[in-house]
Amino acid sequence: MSDEKEKVELEEEGLLASLSSHNMDEFREVFLEQHPYDQAKFFSKLEEEERFIVYSYLSPEEMASVFENIEDDDDRYKIFLSEMDPTFAAQMLSHMYADDAVDVLNELDKDQAASYLTIMDDDAAEEIRELLHYEEYTAGSIMTTEYIAIHANQTVHSAMQILKNEAPNAETIYYVFVIDEAKKLVGVISLRDLIINEPDTMISEVMNERVYSVSVAEDQEEVARKMKDYNFLALPVVDFRGHLLGIITVDDIVDVIDEEASDDYSKLAGIADVDSNDRGPFTAAKKRLPWLIILLFLGMFTASLIGRFEATLDKVAILAVFIPLIAGMAGNTGTQALAVAVRRIAVGDAEEHSSIKLLLKEAGTGLITGTVCGIVVTIVIFVWKGELFLGMLVGISILATLTVATIAGALIPLIMHRLKVDPAVASGPFITTINDIISILIYFGMATLFMQYLI
Amino acid sequence: MSDEKEKVELEEEGLLASLSSHNMDEFREVFLEQHPYDQAKFFSKLEEEERFIVYSYLSPEEMASVFENIEDDDDRYKIFLSEMDPTFAAQMLSHMYADDAVDVLNELDKDQAASYLTIMDDDAAEEIRELLHYEEYTAGSIMTTEYIAIHANQTVHSAMQILKNEAPNAETIYYVFVIDEAKKLVGVISLRDLIINEPDTMISEVMNERVYSVSVAEDQEEVARKMKDYNFLALPVVDFRGHLLGIITVDDIVDVIDEEASDDYSKLAGIADVDSNDRGPFTAAKKRLPWLIILLFLGMFTASLIGRFEATLDKVAILAVFIPLIAGMAGNTGTQALAVAVRRIAVGDAEEHSSIKLLLKEAGTGLITGTVCGIVVTIVIFVWKGELFLGMLVGISILATLTVATIAGALIPLIMHRLKVDPAVASGPFITTINDIISILIYFGMATLFMQYLI
Repeated sequence: MSDEKEKVELEEEGLLASLSSHNMDEFREVFLEQHPYDQAKFFSKLEEEERFIVYSYLSPEEMASVFENIEDDDDRYKIFLSEMDPTFAAQMLSHMYADDAVDVLNELDKDQAASYLTIMDDDAAEEIRELLHYEEYTAGSIMTTEYIAIHANQTVHSAMQILKNEAPNAETIYYVFVIDEAKKLVGVISLRDLIINEPDTMISEVMNERVYSVSVAEDQEEVARKMKDYNFLALPVVDFRGHLLGIITVDDIVDVIDEEASDDYSKLAGIADVDSNDRGPFTAAKKRLPWLIILLFLGMFTASLIGRFEATLDKVAILAVFIPLIAGMAGNTGTQALAVAVRRIAVGDAEEHSSIKLLLKEAGTGLITGTVCGIVVTIVIFVWKGELFLGMLVGISILATLTVATIAGALIPLIMHRLKVDPAVASGPFITTINDIISILIYFGMATLFMQYLI
Repeated sequence: MSDEKEKVELEEEGLLASLSSHNMDEFREVFLEQHPYDQAKFFSKLEEEERFIVYSYLSPEEMASVFENIEDDDDRYKIFLSEMDPTFAAQMLSHMYADDAVDVLNELDKDQAASYLTIMDDDAAEEIRELLHYEEYTAGSIMTTEYIAIHANQTVHSAMQILKNEAPNAETIYYVFVIDEAKKLVGVISLRDLIINEPDTMISEVMNERVYSVSVAEDQEEVARKMKDYNFLALPVVDFRGHLLGIITVDDIVDVIDEEASDDYSKLAGIADVDSNDRGPFTAAKKRLPWLIILLFLGMFTASLIGRFEATLDKVAILAVFIPLIAGMAGNTGTQALAVAVRRIAVGDAEEHSSIKLLLKEAGTGLITGTVCGIVVTIVIFVWKGELFLGMLVGISILATLTVATIAGALIPLIMHRLKVDPAVASGPFITTINDIISILIYFGMATLFMQYLI
């Protein structure tokens, strides 16, 4: 594979050379041999003038397969499209797989998208229009209408004929879906089964009537889970009456799984999108500042809470020494509980009874970890400072804080999930700050109550 | 799909009933119609006595497809196997896809695994033995040897014949790999292309000679990235001389992507494995306590640092009020930088020049966010408390802290990566504690220096 990588890098140099020497034949010969992913990577690195040459060297169809594989910031699609001749762009869009074309058009202004659809050929435009109105992150938004459908009263042979004809345009030919006259989905047969069976067998005899499908409005994360669990290569998408609308292929699902994971990860770290954080420092700062400013004000609130205990602090300054320890432990345990809860919600296990079970379990976990850490800290402070009472105060604060913080870490995402807010938003930094506040109230509250023993 | 889910749930009740009434025919009729994933889910829920009935109702081959789909704690494989008659178990293992059988055998003690291999049929045992010695998390450990290989000097027709014969046993028939006499990989052809081309075409004319492969020792994460980028359904695995050893199919890769993402997420939250945290509270506490205890001692160290400034604190108790704010901001910004760096490393972008670029960018980002937050906090404290000097002290501390903490957040995972330690380990809670220490040194250091202006 590293050979292949080196080869691609060598070829890229050659391609750049043939662009600058305007040698179209040489460019096409090397470029069209490359995998579309490598083509797209090469294209993304080019300067504007070089891109103009590429547009003139490739047909709209060839450009379409490059465009399908661009993994770039969304606003760059816009730039590329605006550089192309509009007719060329429209032709390219109509040659793309409909779901990929929709992704591109979704990034444009409405009137721009409409103008491309107008000059596009009618069939392609219609297919794209159908897909354009599905909401983002639903099955409808990632499905394609380029599937192969057959009828149950055909033979295997005639089904294979259809396959041969449609293979060049269909996104996958490895699953063939069986529909009735009303376009209702009634079965599925894999190409593997078509090949194994005799040509004159009827489809109705060999098809699998137990066909798994997803509803067009289903969340893409749910679709990904189904595909992963059942190891499908394609899943049919149906409307509420069971009519076949499109299919979702495994390659799109691989991207969904990757995106969703990166999304949860970003939110746990308190960044909008961890993967787009690699432009300049100004862009990165702009993306991170909103969170930091919110947390700054939450932190000021925490500070004002401690401020209320200034009298206590004035008398027993050593109390301040343990603030970061207690707040830190609360933050850590809260993040652990949060991560478990968010993950549980993500794998679809958040029914009412299992939520309550989760909370009880987290309460128990918090109590156990709190007791252990509380005892350890009491002993350490006693040995280190020789102060049993201070040790007990910190120890009991840790016990109470860890219990409450663990429950809060699980409770908050569960509540947000019930309120239909993405629970991952309630993530790392947010839960940490909430738990700062909880821990400080507990710690200073207890210290003020038992002041007489401390002085 | 929810219909399908309800149907499965209804069927499960029926299956349980037929198990308890010892109605084998009824059980088999419903069970064998189910998708293996549903079969495995049902089986995992059974009690021991019920499982014994299932073993007696199913053939080793039928049981194999259940076993391939069990997604359970690894130690349960052991229990299930020990319940079976050894000959039944061995036959079942030999009917499983070799890569899945290897996963199961890897969980057993060496001598147990060896004894199953001895009573297994020879072909299957040999295939499994070959796979058993590849290291975990490499391409070798997830590949299967049940692929279809043909020669370049065959016709499409004869290739299709081979396909028809091997289809029932091969893990995928959608890619066929072309090898020479020495078993060297020389090309690939998709079933789609086989179907489109005329039966008497030679494979050498239609195969793709540009075949992407991975080395058997390659990291599975790298394999997953390749598969995702290039949208392959299967990737061939070769040794260093280019001999075809096996293939990796997309369904295994989907699991890898999911596992790796969950792994990074768990580490960011400071939990060993977020997905196995759902047994009882004692198990959960046992898994989380190691981290919490380590962090407790790190926190005690932070506390002892603040303790050194007790004299300062005694004079200006209000300083304590801003400890959580400053430490919290340092933790947040460090986690953001860490997440970006870990992700960059995960997508393979950690060469020396890009590491330095990343560090410079993070330094810039820290300086910008630090300046903005520092100015905001100075203004807020001045307006709120009327104390310009205290405001400036906190503001400048935030500026310095954020800059250093952001750099540390990026630097630490990069160093760990260079030391060949998984950078995700240096995650959330760890970086937070490091940054606690940094922030307190900066804040109290400055406060002590400029003490005269504060009193």
